[in-house]
Amino acid sequence: MKLNEFAKLFDKELRKHLSGIEIYEPLKESVSYTPLLGGKRLRPYLLYELAQNTLFGSERALLTGIAVELFHSGSLIHDDLPSIDNDDLRRGKPSCHIKFGEGRAILAGDFLMLYPARLLSSIELPCISKQKLLEMWSISALRVVQGEYADVTPSESTEEFLDFIYDNKTSALFGFCFAAPYILDTDSSRENMYELGMEFGRIFQMLDDIKDATSTMEELGKTPGKDLKQHKLSILSFLSIEEALVVAKRRFEDLTDRIAVHESLVHELQGMYEILIRR
Amino acid sequence: MKLNEFAKLFDKELRKHLSGIEIYEPLKESVSYTPLLGGKRLRPYLLYELAQNTLFGSERALLTGIAVELFHSGSLIHDDLPSIDNDDLRRGKPSCHIKFGEGRAILAGDFLMLYPARLLSSIELPCISKQKLLEMWSISALRVVQGEYADVTPSESTEEFLDFIYDNKTSALFGFCFAAPYILDTDSSRENMYELGMEFGRIFQMLDDIKDATSTMEELGKTPGKDLKQHKLSILSFLSIEEALVVAKRRFEDLTDRIAVHESLVHELQGMYEILIRR
Repeated sequence: MKLNEFAKLFDKELRKHLSGIEIYEPLKESVSYTPLLGGKRLRPYLLYELAQNTLFGSERALLTGIAVELFHSGSLIHDDLPSIDNDDLRRGKPSCHIKFGEGRAILAGDFLMLYPARLLSSIELPCISKQKLLEMWSISALRVVQGEYADVTPSESTEEFLDFIYDNKTSALFGFCFAAPYILDTDSSRENMYELGMEFGRIFQMLDDIKDATSTMEELGKTPGKDLKQHKLSILSFLSIEEALVVAKRRFEDLTDRIAVHESLVHELQGMYEILIRR
Repeated sequence: MKLNEFAKLFDKELRKHLSGIEIYEPLKESVSYTPLLGGKRLRPYLLYELAQNTLFGSERALLTGIAVELFHSGSLIHDDLPSIDNDDLRRGKPSCHIKFGEGRAILAGDFLMLYPARLLSSIELPCISKQKLLEMWSISALRVVQGEYADVTPSESTEEFLDFIYDNKTSALFGFCFAAPYILDTDSSRENMYELGMEFGRIFQMLDDIKDATSTMEELGKTPGKDLKQHKLSILSFLSIEEALVVAKRRFEDLTDRIAVHESLVHELQGMYEILIRR
């Protein structure tokens, strides 16, 4: 399936899922706001496409994708708060704390970050596979928080430390998306996929850093040039934009070679890559 | 074991556990701060004492208690933030956001709320029991966030709505503590214990509301009289202090009758009750 087709399918499922959660109505409103602002839905897409070739299947992949996307939204809500990245805009709309106030945004983020474990525990799977899925999930979720913390309060300005930030803040969630469809396969194939997902995450974050430095507000849907203004460590602390693009391209080609068996996915990723580097 | 003896044992285990978590060192520092400020350790104590009479046992109970206490600390960190309860003090010491700044406090809270699922998934249990434990955990954790949200943005000023806040904000975690030691028993005994834990939580929260209205800063370790100042719904919105104490006492006696089989626990709870109502 193409990424934009999938996004439509996913948005419909996500909306249905959110409206079905039985919680205090005002909380539901603030919990649903950010996830429903849209987005490429890249993480659930990767998960869904990879699941087409495994025993995991579409239905489980959609639910797992919803879990990942909700967590991702929750972490973005906290990230946008004045005391962290301080961004009033998210996908071109008011950030959650602008819309609902900081207190409610913090709690909505808490809910969105905790809910995925609940959702994943409801997916039909053999007990031992579910246990592995939940364990892999909680490890990945904690890595995101750790990476976010390291990003906000870096203790070093080295490339090694940037790798540490990338691996945790961004790549762990992609690792989970690559590996979850393989939860019914062997441990080694799952671990291998987690590593490939991590690599995808690193490339994705590199391109994101470049985009932050080169896009307009309209293209980005959030305030551009913030990494530089906030003196944040990024790939551009070590490489020029041109150099970074060369590295990203080489690593992207290596990666697509390694997942060549997923033909249609690779084709879509290549298209997406072209869009991500377009300036 | 007596509550104060247990607190010493628990604090030692908690400190050891926190120092063993392998995460980015600055994150570990802000994650460890609030849990190590002390406290009665009532939730882990209940869990530990109840586990003495079940197959769950001390070792699992201690780990589960650490999970609960870390989550509780995380939720207190978010609760203390300026945009929520705005309290500079926690257990007589600077709140996490005063010590580390708001951004780091938010992320430390995130970590502490997510980590318990990771810790619980590492406890040695038959697969199906672990699945039940994790499911019960994520339901309880989400209820805390929901209750907190309802407490901050109440949609009604009725006794029914106060019950809703109590049941979620406070009681769900006590329900978990009462029920977790019964995870290897029948579903019905576990559900029964969850309900008894919820009732304990309601009584505990009633006494907490009374304490908030009648204590000094020194006794409370946080700013007193805030419920009233912030026009928060509490049992004192509906009953006088004397009336509330009568209700709490009657419900506490009913509850201890129902858990009379746990003799030494009941004895300790009675002692604790006397301390909680002392003014």
